[in-house]
Amino acid sequence: MGNPSVAVLGGTGQQGRGIAQRLALAGFPVVVGSRDPDRAAAAIREWPASVSTVRSATYGDAIASSDVVVLAIPFDSVDAALEQHQQHFRSQALVVDVTVPLSFANKAVTLAAVPEGSAAEHVKARLPAHTRLAATFKTVPASLLGDLDRPLECDEFVCGDSDEARAAGRELVEAMPGLRAVDVGPLSRARSIEHLTLLAVGINRRHKIHDARFKIVGL
Amino acid sequence: MGNPSVAVLGGTGQQGRGIAQRLALAGFPVVVGSRDPDRAAAAIREWPASVSTVRSATYGDAIASSDVVVLAIPFDSVDAALEQHQQHFRSQALVVDVTVPLSFANKAVTLAAVPEGSAAEHVKARLPAHTRLAATFKTVPASLLGDLDRPLECDEFVCGDSDEARAAGRELVEAMPGLRAVDVGPLSRARSIEHLTLLAVGINRRHKIHDARFKIVGL
Repeated sequence: MGNPSVAVLGGTGQQGRGIAQRLALAGFPVVVGSRDPDRAAAAIREWPASVSTVRSATYGDAIASSDVVVLAIPFDSVDAALEQHQQHFRSQALVVDVTVPLSFANKAVTLAAVPEGSAAEHVKARLPAHTRLAATFKTVPASLLGDLDRPLECDEFVCGDSDEARAAGRELVEAMPGLRAVDVGPLSRARSIEHLTLLAVGINRRHKIHDARFKIVGL
Repeated sequence: MGNPSVAVLGGTGQQGRGIAQRLALAGFPVVVGSRDPDRAAAAIREWPASVSTVRSATYGDAIASSDVVVLAIPFDSVDAALEQHQQHFRSQALVVDVTVPLSFANKAVTLAAVPEGSAAEHVKARLPAHTRLAATFKTVPASLLGDLDRPLECDEFVCGDSDEARAAGRELVEAMPGLRAVDVGPLSRARSIEHLTLLAVGINRRHKIHDARFKIVGL
């Protein structure tokens, strides 16, 4: 069996681009889902030749043609996208939530309160029941992901609504050289992962660096 | 100027013991504050000769005789201890909050909700106004801290209510070989640090290890 096909919604943003490119490099068939597929196609033509297999499509077409759907869109855009495309998800599709509801009001970066507990649980509540959900790619810095020449050299945390979702999420993570997947359990762990991101962004700002990320010692 | 004197309340518990012993090894004058100083004295007599300078005292005496007060007592015991000993803190004393309000109900480990946002902010609201507060030693595993033969080899996160408090907190952290202090900013970052602890405990359980801890890559 070959690699599952992957749709990356928001695949021309910094984070989505990094995920799309690195998964394509690892041999996954990748389609970038975009509100403007022509503009996305033009952007993709500028990508390195090594990831020239990536194509673009509308959100609906990308979702309908893929085994895995990565939500690399801003947290605030998730509700509308999911509501509009409920019926497009393949049966048993794996959805990958990478969103972190950071707020940058008044120069302070904070994590927005989410009634469901975390962005991932918010997403879960809006997905078709037949899909599975993993949350990951929340902490590896987008700027680093999007620069294919730089090694990642860190851990990426994975939680999910089932063993199967977590295993599938881990496979995507570990398809990227230098990234170790750390399974942290059920979806209720997602808020902790989102706090890691907040902490890393805070460390970046305070220490005037760009790519603070985490490695678990002792594992 | 010599090292500040340090009181470790709850200094015979696993975490407090590790902090007391390692600070004593680093040359700080350390007193263990205990509800039962005689029992604490007996426990200290069993400690390695290298930390034989540590003495014991009541909470009140320990607080009154120290520049730094480490709250290494369970989060649930903090309110009573602080209420009872308000008047004992030295002027401008540095208080170090190391508590994490973990709950182990129904075999699941979670982080208790704290109205102030975090354990550290809860503590801050109950301290005399003249004191300063740093939150740290929340993530380095207690079992590792308490085993002097084992290297720590990780980062420890520090936040605080002022630059001065953070700097003082960093000094305590970096007095322990193998521990790098990472300044993460204001006290409002404490909840993220507490989530790191939750995540580490979850990783320990899931992966059947004991000392999961963090290292920041890129700093």
